[in-house]
Parts: sequence; C-alpha cells; structure tokens
Amino acid sequence: MNNTLLILPGDGIGPEVMAEVTRIIDWFGDKRGLKFDVTEDLVGGAAYDAHGKPLSDATMAKAQEVDAVLLGAVGGPKYDTLDFSLKPERGLLRLRKEMDLFANLRPAQCFDALADFSSLKRDVVSGLDIMIVRELTSGIYFGEPRGIVEEGGQRVGLNTQRYTEAEIDRVARSAFELARKRGNKVCSMEKANVMESGILWREVVQKVHDESYPDVELSHMYADAGGMQLCRWPKQFDVIVTDNLFGDLLSDVAAMLTGSLGMLPSASLGAPMENGRPKAMYEPVHGSAPDIAGQGKANPIACILSFAMALRYSFDQGAEATRLEKAVEQVLADGVRTADLMQSDGGSPVSTAQMGDAILAAL
Amino acid sequence: MNNTLLILPGDGIGPEVMAEVTRIIDWFGDKRGLKFDVTEDLVGGAAYDAHGKPLSDATMAKAQEVDAVLLGAVGGPKYDTLDFSLKPERGLLRLRKEMDLFANLRPAQCFDALADFSSLKRDVVSGLDIMIVRELTSGIYFGEPRGIVEEGGQRVGLNTQRYTEAEIDRVARSAFELARKRGNKVCSMEKANVMESGILWREVVQKVHDESYPDVELSHMYADAGGMQLCRWPKQFDVIVTDNLFGDLLSDVAAMLTGSLGMLPSASLGAPMENGRPKAMYEPVHGSAPDIAGQGKANPIACILSFAMALRYSFDQGAEATRLEKAVEQVLADGVRTADLMQSDGGSPVSTAQMGDAILAAL
Ligand SMILES: CC(C)[C@H](C(=O)O)[C@@H](O)C(=O)O
Ligand SMILES: CC(C)[C@H](C(=O)O)[C@@H](O)C(=O)O
Repeated sequence: MNNTLLILPGDGIGPEVMAEVTRIIDWFGDKRGLKFDVTEDLVGGAAYDAHGKPLSDATMAKAQEVDAVLLGAVGGPKYDTLDFSLKPERGLLRLRKEMDLFANLRPAQCFDALADFSSLKRDVVSGLDIMIVRELTSGIYFGEPRGIVEEGGQRVGLNTQRYTEAEIDRVARSAFELARKRGNKVCSMEKANVMESGILWREVVQKVHDESYPDVELSHMYADAGGMQLCRWPKQFDVIVTDNLFGDLLSDVAAMLTGSLGMLPSASLGAPMENGRPKAMYEPVHGSAPDIAGQGKANPIACILSFAMALRYSFDQGAEATRLEKAVEQVLADGVRTADLMQSDGGSPVSTAQMGDAILAAL
Repeated sequence: MNNTLLILPGDGIGPEVMAEVTRIIDWFGDKRGLKFDVTEDLVGGAAYDAHGKPLSDATMAKAQEVDAVLLGAVGGPKYDTLDFSLKPERGLLRLRKEMDLFANLRPAQCFDALADFSSLKRDVVSGLDIMIVRELTSGIYFGEPRGIVEEGGQRVGLNTQRYTEAEIDRVARSAFELARKRGNKVCSMEKANVMESGILWREVVQKVHDESYPDVELSHMYADAGGMQLCRWPKQFDVIVTDNLFGDLLSDVAAMLTGSLGMLPSASLGAPMENGRPKAMYEPVHGSAPDIAGQGKANPIACILSFAMALRYSFDQGAEATRLEKAVEQVLADGVRTADLMQSDGGSPVSTAQMGDAILAAL
C-alpha cells in the first residue's frame, strides 16, 4: 500500500519547522524503507496571498485523498484585518470540518529534561502524561445560526452550540479506545449544571461506557472544576474527553502546564477510509509565532512529533514512531536546545536546522 | 439610610461559614456603629426541601429589595438526580438573572502566608492580585433556543450564545472603571477567531475604550491563549474582562493558581437602585463542599471576605472593608489555620468558629 502525505507548511514558522520534518520523512524512506509520496501545498495566509482564500478547493480535494495531512501553522498580523471568512484560521477549520476529523488527540506530556520550564512545581508536573480528546467538528465552532445580526436597533453576536447523540457517541468511543491502551481511565468534562448540551453529553458518554467499555474507569467533572484540577494535580488524569470549545481551552492550559509547549504535537482523526486508514491531520499545538518567523530560531520538535503521531495513527508504524520519539528525548537529554528551550543561565541555542541535524544523528 | 442585607446560607458548608459572617456583621453594628437590617432565607437544595424549588418567589422578591444579598453555597449529591429546572444551581442563576447582576468581580489574590499552597512556583504567584470581571447575565448560560430536542430520529443538545452591544458595553465599563482604581490595565478575552459573538465582543470593548477610557491600557487575547498565559505568568494581568462561560473557566483557573481557593470572595453587581446603591450579591468562590459539611471544619474566610466586598461596593465603607481584610491577613500571619490551610507537616487546625473568634479578636 502507498503512503501518501500532503504537507501544508502554512504561515510564520510553519515552513521552517516543516523543512526539518521533510528531512526526517526522507530519512525514514532511505534508512527504514518507509517511503512516502509527498505533495506540498498552501494553507492559511499563504493560500490567501496566492488564491484570495485561506484554502483552495483544489487543496481541499487533495487533503481528502491522502492518508495524512501534515500542517505547520496558520495566521499572522498581516491577516488580522481580513474578513472573518477569509482569515487564515478558516482554512484550518475547513480542513477539520470537511475531512470530518472529529477526534482531536492532544497529548500533554512533560519532558523530564524540560520540567523546570513549567511554572508549576516540579513534583506536580514531572512525569505528567495525559491525553485530551477534544471533539473537533461540531459544537459552537460550527453550529448554526451564527453571525452578527441586527435586533431592536442594536447588533447581536450569535453562536450556537449543537451536539447530536451520534457526534458525542463517536468521540467518546475514541476516548475509551485510547484509554484502554493507556491508564484505562476517562474523565469527561462539560457544564451539565448550566447547559442542556452538557446534560446530553454526560448521558451519552455514560451510555457508551456502560454498553461498550464497562472495563474503563469513567468519571464526570464540570469543565470549570476540570480546569482547576488540571492546575492543582494534573496527574490525577489519564484521558480527558470534552467538547470543541472546552477542549480548546483545557488542552491549551494542560499544554502550558507541562512547560513543554514548543514540544507538543496533535492528531485529528476521522472515520476510516477505504484503505482502512482514518482520515487524519497532524499539527503542532503551537501557533505560527510571527515574531520569530524566518529567523531559523523556531523549535521544530512539536512538528516532528506530529509526524511521529502520523506514523503511529495513520501508518500503523508504532515502533518507528517510538524510534523517532526516543531520538527526540535523546537529543533533549544531551542538552541540545533551541532558543525557546534555554534557561536564562546558559549555553548558546541551536538553530532550527541544527535541531533537525541532532535528531537525524540520534536516529 | 438603612443598610439591608438578605442572607442566604444555602447548602453544605454554607450555613456554617455564614454563621461566622453573622458574628462579624454584629461586631460592625456594636463596635463601629454600622448597623445592618438582616433577613435570612433559603436557597438551593435547602429551598427545594422546603418549597419544592431552589428559590421561592417570595425570596426572589426580597432579594430585589435589599441593598445586598450574601450567599453561602448551593448544591449537594442529594440533589444530583433532580430535573435541570429544580437543581440548586437554578436558584443561584435565577438570582443573577432577575437581579440583572451583569458584572461578576472575582479577585484572584495570592495571600502571602499561603503562597506555598499553590501548585505553581512561589515567584510565579506571590503577590498576585488580579481582578476578573465576568459577564454574568447573558451568553450561553441564558441564550435561547436551548434544550434537548429531537431531530432526524436522534436527540440534539442545544444552547445559544447571544450578546447584544449593550450587554458588552456595560460590563466593559465596569472593567475599565475598576482598572482605573487598580493597575489601569484591561485585557479582554474571547474567541474572535472562531465565534462571531467574540468579534462583536472585541469591537464593542475597543469602542468603549476609545470613546470613554482612552487612558486605560487595553489588550485583547484569545481565551485559550488567555488560559495559557494565566498559567505561565499571571502577574502580567491587572483586570481581565470576559464573557459568562469563559469567565467561569478562567476565573476558576486563576483562583486555583493562587493556592488560596478557600479564601476567595466574589461580588456580582447590577445597575444602581433608587438609593444609588447597585443591586448586589456576594458569595465565596468555593462550593458547598458536602464532604465536610456539618463538621465545623470549613474555612469561613472566603465568605467573610465576601462581606468585606459588600462593605466596599454596596455600602461605600472602603475603610471598614480594609479593616476586615487586614484582620484576616493578621490572623493568617499569626498562623491560625483551618484544616484546608494546613500543610502536612503540622500543627492542629482550628474549627470554623475558632477562625471566626480569631478574626473577631484581630478586629
Ligand atoms: C487557530 C484556532 C482556530 C484553533 C482553535 O480554536 O481550534 C486553535 O486555537 C487550536 O486549538 O487548534
Ligand atoms: C454553580 C454554577 C452554576 C456556577 C456557574 O457556572 O456560574 C459556578 O461554577 C460559578 O462559577 O459561580
């Protein structure tokens, strides 16, 4: 079976970090006989500059055909004044929606060599390894009606949270499946005390559990309490499952806690395609960092680890994924650091490409 | 002018902590000539037990007439299976909505004597003092349509986020007014990159700033980035203004960061009444803590500091509020600790009433 990849470097530091991923992809082809058919294309501001919209229909069609999309980052100050429908983010949201990538996997992992970067105490975060499963194609991100409407002589901003039973069911299953391969615990978060969509969410998650995953330990938490508990003692969690908007906030909080923000990958998975592989997109959690773009300073690790997730979830190459992850750990343990990973006390940072070199050498 | 107070102790530890507040109120009457007309009534599960609903119409009417409502806490496992409309929380939400308490002030302050309780490093939180202004009467908490509806053979959970210009305008003004008395900085948080209601939010906050508060420093942040920044370096903030749902999460995260969760008060303010005082309700940030209720262990400080906020914001008694806050600080500095404030290493905790005694003695 062919392995097809669509690479969308995007904006800001996206192209720089993706360049290192490309070298790693080539290494797997040369050294491990794991060949990939790679196409590259535009998304976000880069696509807007070329085509007047943040994702062309042709690129969208390509994304639907490949085994996995690798995305760098989108956005930049240059595009801040664009109309909502033309903003770089809409390209990303269109990919998520049209590929129906309903399960967004966001590992929040604390790299031991980096634990001191966390604003939290070492014992609170060291060894932390949780997986947030965020619903990614529904909820208030996509619900209709939406917009800014005129009512009684003033403007009203409007968005709609909508969740169907089927939408909750499928993302809950993803979370339980993952939990079985990890700590076997799922905590589901919503605001069932305030929102009816949260009541349905809680009910359906419980039902999926009782009918299909009674062996997994399930708990429920209000999302505000969940945010608190993440800050207090994050190690109490294994897998967290939550909706699109809560997931956006909570996964970012969890990511920041680890102190390893520049290191965190993500996977967005949909239903299986004809070849049995799930529709999939992989991207780093960090943004496009326009302030350092083009300077060769950016840390490529989050993007490289996103490719490791692709190896695991799209290409069933768990052992190769682990090989790549171990190489990254090795390099960190050796003290190789891009600028974002430097403590004030010391040493001189390596460039984006030098970090790539080091990881290739460790491989 | 009379000073009228309605006390709603509510559920769980509510009555115990409120008993200490009552002693403090009496002290101000006896020793400072500051008399209060106090009425007591039921809310939450306690009201449900008595009247079959979490807030009776008679109690609601009383709340509309007094200068300030002091609320303990609502909720408990006993009420978990009640219908949504009968749950203890609905009593609280009805008070907020019908009194139109649109500005929820949630100070997140780190008490120096307690900084080691934070899961964050001491230098990240010591001296922290931020004020979150959360919109409290609109947004997805109250928007219509809402409910669980049947569509195409399956159930759909539905909630609506709605914000009018006027709703955003008034809460923004509250935030700017507060900032002028503090660090003169406001950060507004929304998801304008994803939600049209966030676009309108950002626009109106900017307009209020430009037209009426150009002297205050204003910035905008996406709510997910805001959550991250709160965890990374919370001292960058002075006043944060945000909507009802983001405010629920972000203020809880901020509260937890301080390590002083059992210590944090809140004020919910509405428009001025005929006597010039704002409609107002004061309550601790902590919940009803059913696990320790009735044992005389609870920490009454958050509820006592809520009364201090009442002195300041409802009764224009800033100096007396400061007197009470200083007494609390004094007691903490002296090492008086309820069970929640004990480090594992030591000493024996005081009871709820003993903490009240100590604060009265310090006054
Ligand atoms: C860029 C933005 C639209 C996006 C989101 O809100 O989902 C980002 O914050 C994320 O979490 O991937
Ligand atoms: C109890 C609950 C309804 C409430 C809310 O969600 O507003 C609480 O979390 C709060 O923040 O005051």
